[in-house]
Amino acid sequence: MASAGGKPTILLLRRLDSSFATALRERFHVLDFHASGEPLAAFLAAAAAAPEPPRAAIVVGGGSIRADASFLDTVPSLRCIFSTGAGVDHIDLAECARRGVSVANSGEVYSTDVADHAVGLLIDVLRRVSAAERYVRSGSWPVQGDYPLGSKLGGKRVGIIGLGNIGSRIAKRLEAFGCVIYYNSRRPKDSVVSYKYFPNVHDLAAKSDVLIVACALNKWTRHIVNKDVLEALGKDGVIINIGRGANVDEAELVVALKDGKIAGAGLDVFENEPRVPGELFSMDNVVLTNHVAVFTAQSRSDLCAHTISNLEAFFSGQPLLTPVHDDSIVD
Amino acid sequence: MASAGGKPTILLLRRLDSSFATALRERFHVLDFHASGEPLAAFLAAAAAAPEPPRAAIVVGGGSIRADASFLDTVPSLRCIFSTGAGVDHIDLAECARRGVSVANSGEVYSTDVADHAVGLLIDVLRRVSAAERYVRSGSWPVQGDYPLGSKLGGKRVGIIGLGNIGSRIAKRLEAFGCVIYYNSRRPKDSVVSYKYFPNVHDLAAKSDVLIVACALNKWTRHIVNKDVLEALGKDGVIINIGRGANVDEAELVVALKDGKIAGAGLDVFENEPRVPGELFSMDNVVLTNHVAVFTAQSRSDLCAHTISNLEAFFSGQPLLTPVHDDSIVD
Repeated sequence: MASAGGKPTILLLRRLDSSFATALRERFHVLDFHASGEPLAAFLAAAAAAPEPPRAAIVVGGGSIRADASFLDTVPSLRCIFSTGAGVDHIDLAECARRGVSVANSGEVYSTDVADHAVGLLIDVLRRVSAAERYVRSGSWPVQGDYPLGSKLGGKRVGIIGLGNIGSRIAKRLEAFGCVIYYNSRRPKDSVVSYKYFPNVHDLAAKSDVLIVACALNKWTRHIVNKDVLEALGKDGVIINIGRGANVDEAELVVALKDGKIAGAGLDVFENEPRVPGELFSMDNVVLTNHVAVFTAQSRSDLCAHTISNLEAFFSGQPLLTPVHDDSIVD
Repeated sequence: MASAGGKPTILLLRRLDSSFATALRERFHVLDFHASGEPLAAFLAAAAAAPEPPRAAIVVGGGSIRADASFLDTVPSLRCIFSTGAGVDHIDLAECARRGVSVANSGEVYSTDVADHAVGLLIDVLRRVSAAERYVRSGSWPVQGDYPLGSKLGGKRVGIIGLGNIGSRIAKRLEAFGCVIYYNSRRPKDSVVSYKYFPNVHDLAAKSDVLIVACALNKWTRHIVNKDVLEALGKDGVIINIGRGANVDEAELVVALKDGKIAGAGLDVFENEPRVPGELFSMDNVVLTNHVAVFTAQSRSDLCAHTISNLEAFFSGQPLLTPVHDDSIVD
């Protein structure tokens, strides 16, 4: 099914930089929500009523537009939803499966960048890089005396929740620092023999010095790090989250940090982005970044190529490169 | 030669935490400059005139007390100088050798921590961690729009100046991130075949995306990164310095950053510590820490054990564990 000019019609529901948008328009007839200036409901209704309604949609990972039953009712022509993120928590996978709508995500495009950022956050928390930065920039170095010691990476037991594309890359990097790798996932990975597997996150936390959240967000992993897990991690423990904010019970995390029940945190994601709990701003043992773990020029470029490859596969009747199924999303 | 109580006398010329000081006093008769409250000249003269003058001294790495001919003239009984740092730029090695005064340093005690910090600085500069931190803590995230993209670690050509204890550990870590490792040192390392060797730093900079200074400071390496090297590194290049401030021509570095002749810098050391050039404070592409690359509780504890082992070796006539010679100090 193609529009005038022979290009297949796609629904674009996220903002893209101009080179990405241009590359899409060269290949597809793009119905661009943000460029339309219309309210979402009116935009979707018009798209659905077009002579060549869209069969594929591009949505933003973790965005405000949810691909749920109501959305699919509005544009019943859709047969493929492509998320530009690794996470698909904004897509109702069961509903898509029921209707025969295939789903794809960014696959491994972001995995190395997110893993790099996770390691950066961990070094920062343990070695107090951002805190030292504030100390230097405030002019405190020449006038103050002792500076608090950091904590060595080597020998740290790092528990990774979700040993998928991202988690396994984090593990590989941290092995080079002399860390000991533990992990939790729904099932042990047959291919992984050198990392100890923990069937539940509480036990993983109890045995770990550092807990890194690297799993997808879904009904099983919402608040997978809760009050009990934080207490099991303990007062010398550090938590790193590059998954989704709601993987961690943020209110309990703030309490644990305030009460010294854990030692520190490095957070790239938050439960109500862009809102970050104000209590964290006064803490020197937390590192806070604005969901930038995927933000590199190279991954943007890779994402553009990957998105087009998936859409071309879909429109030519080939298998999607990075399909997402309802049962494949824990790690 | 021992003091009353049978303990050998040592000169302590740096401040130590209490557990380290206690461990020393259990084994040695410690003449403690900072505890004495005396001016340095008077303190040294009194030590030299004591019935059991000190044969060993502990000095701080990179500190203000220089172990030069004048110092050695003042306390002629000294036969061993132990630096608690890896760098010995404050010790006149040639003069020590001429007088038969042996020198030892901290060896590999700090190497992993410094390597970890170097990698942390590099991730921070490339992925804008501290800059994102400021953005979040200032409350900008909810009100501002686009955030600038960072740069991927994978594929970066990293030129390491000095492939010694620290540089080789930096290389090992960055290999796990998919970086390509180049290096410069006075001689190629026979044991290293997988990293390309560059006999001079200018050529290394010209071929590298990132330059990491991991060499000792001495007459050959002072300002080894100068204006020409910075220009060879180029406008997309990043410099990381965890060596000594004076390995880099700091004034030229500031100019290069201001003029956009290089892309960014991560600096743990400065030419006139604790003074940091004020121009750097307004830059978002630099990361500044207060010479904390060695600051972990674990390395402090390791240093205590290592110092005592070296001193006990010296006083029992055994070889020092980590001797430093005049020709062994580039990398």
